[in-house]
Amino acid sequence: MAATKMILDLDTGVDDALALALAICDPRVDLIGVIASYGNTLVETAAQNTLNLLQLLGATDVPVYLGASHSSTTDHFDVMPISQAIHGDQGVGNLLLTTATRKVETTNGIQFLVDMAHKYQDELIYVPTGPLTNMAKALEIDPEIAHLIGNTTLMGGALTVPGNVTPFTEANINQDPQAADKVFTTQENLTMVGLDVTLRTLLTKKDTQLWRELGTKAGTAYADLMDFYIEAYDRLDIDHRGAALHDPLAVAVAIDPSYVVTIPLNMRVTYDKDTHDYGRTIGDRQRLLDPTTTNVAVGVNAKRFVRDFMDFMISVLKA
Amino acid sequence: MAATKMILDLDTGVDDALALALAICDPRVDLIGVIASYGNTLVETAAQNTLNLLQLLGATDVPVYLGASHSSTTDHFDVMPISQAIHGDQGVGNLLLTTATRKVETTNGIQFLVDMAHKYQDELIYVPTGPLTNMAKALEIDPEIAHLIGNTTLMGGALTVPGNVTPFTEANINQDPQAADKVFTTQENLTMVGLDVTLRTLLTKKDTQLWRELGTKAGTAYADLMDFYIEAYDRLDIDHRGAALHDPLAVAVAIDPSYVVTIPLNMRVTYDKDTHDYGRTIGDRQRLLDPTTTNVAVGVNAKRFVRDFMDFMISVLKA
Repeated sequence: MAATKMILDLDTGVDDALALALAICDPRVDLIGVIASYGNTLVETAAQNTLNLLQLLGATDVPVYLGASHSSTTDHFDVMPISQAIHGDQGVGNLLLTTATRKVETTNGIQFLVDMAHKYQDELIYVPTGPLTNMAKALEIDPEIAHLIGNTTLMGGALTVPGNVTPFTEANINQDPQAADKVFTTQENLTMVGLDVTLRTLLTKKDTQLWRELGTKAGTAYADLMDFYIEAYDRLDIDHRGAALHDPLAVAVAIDPSYVVTIPLNMRVTYDKDTHDYGRTIGDRQRLLDPTTTNVAVGVNAKRFVRDFMDFMISVLKA
Repeated sequence: MAATKMILDLDTGVDDALALALAICDPRVDLIGVIASYGNTLVETAAQNTLNLLQLLGATDVPVYLGASHSSTTDHFDVMPISQAIHGDQGVGNLLLTTATRKVETTNGIQFLVDMAHKYQDELIYVPTGPLTNMAKALEIDPEIAHLIGNTTLMGGALTVPGNVTPFTEANINQDPQAADKVFTTQENLTMVGLDVTLRTLLTKKDTQLWRELGTKAGTAYADLMDFYIEAYDRLDIDHRGAALHDPLAVAVAIDPSYVVTIPLNMRVTYDKDTHDYGRTIGDRQRLLDPTTTNVAVGVNAKRFVRDFMDFMISVLKA
């Protein structure tokens, strides 16, 4: 069976780094490129982190593209202090990664997405784990991709649980609710992997200790990276039991949807600044009886996912 | 097979009147009593409407009990103008029903619920279709009923769609969010049938015309009642395609859960007046990894339900 063509769209970021490693080591995935996004870090930092991590993991054949540097409704982006507290000043938990010898591609990431949508069509899986600005822009450039891309599995949103920025909005969606609304109301074959499920998938220092014990450069780096994140979760009272595997769960679901239970629901995102529910991902009352384009993950086999995730991570980190 | 013991808790109300008729005519149900609640009307009006409807339907053996007259955080209740616009000034769509010869029982409805929970235990199904004040009070009087009652299927709340009073709260929950929170965080074997599913079950004047054509007193009365409601839905821009079968769906699901798709989720209700999401029914972050006590309906086989509902209604209205 041919591996699935996958594009990741990362604001790299600790859990993005895990998602990247998972996509690299799963034999069912052919990672044809990574688009960098602003979000957990500046877009340039996200791109550089991605290049450095790819080199660390020995995957120097995966091209990295620059995406949008700010939201569709702003002309500038500053990293939020809470993002720095969770992901470290440079997004990789204060880890000092060896600078990659490669550079980002000259093609723009948004154009790359449009091109690949046409080239691979329903063989393509797109996994954005940051703001949805790149996809919204791609949909503006070429509305046709709404029907072309095989599946889009995004990490973001919160339907059945409160948000993590306000009670109504989740961090990725909050960066650009207008772009998110465009994606939710336009894109077909969309799967939302939000806080509903990711908050139930926790990794602990007992797990990262197994990476550390591999004695490899990559194992130590990823253990340090994730421990920073686990400590931030504890320090910031997000969860004292462990840290959520947000982005890797989206990659895993994109490959194997049976990790989650989904419900079909047409959704919208509120983006009026004057409302209290800015950035809320919620069912679209106007399309409640229409055929559905989105599946929302509302349940997860966390035990199976964490076990499989650990197996894959150990296989890539021991090399 | 013995019929299931059911208690309805109604703020009668147009769709409560439909729920009552459905519970009476379904042979799988033994309706052992109705508790009246404030909500769509004053509690005394709800009780009188229920007595009158039971007489109209020839079910004069079902006792009616008075429940709470106002929420757990107020000392008074006025019917909201929007409730009067939807249900009519007296709750039954301006219908002039013959006054029942019977009166309400002398036992209080809340005590009745506690007594029946002990008497029938897991054979008892309790279906509140108004505010949850009565159940919260019953839980205060006797916390044991949380474990005793076989199943509680409530009409109320909105998890995956916006509310109908504010974007965050549904009408029944909004009447007494504190009571609702008590129920959601305490009661076991709870099923929530909220706007998520009820807004997808619409009845039209084409349907009520079939009741009218039966040529019976009850058929004409129920057609008039429901047409008032359908016209209010249209006039108030709630839905121009028909009116939602909120309360009858809860009764149907209580009898046959296969009408809906549910997800297990521990929930809470926000009741701090200072927050914007007053009355929001949402997943409880603190109990996200705990064993679940609530199932939330998020999908419905509307076609099958409306067809079965119509069959049952015609059987009871033609008699």
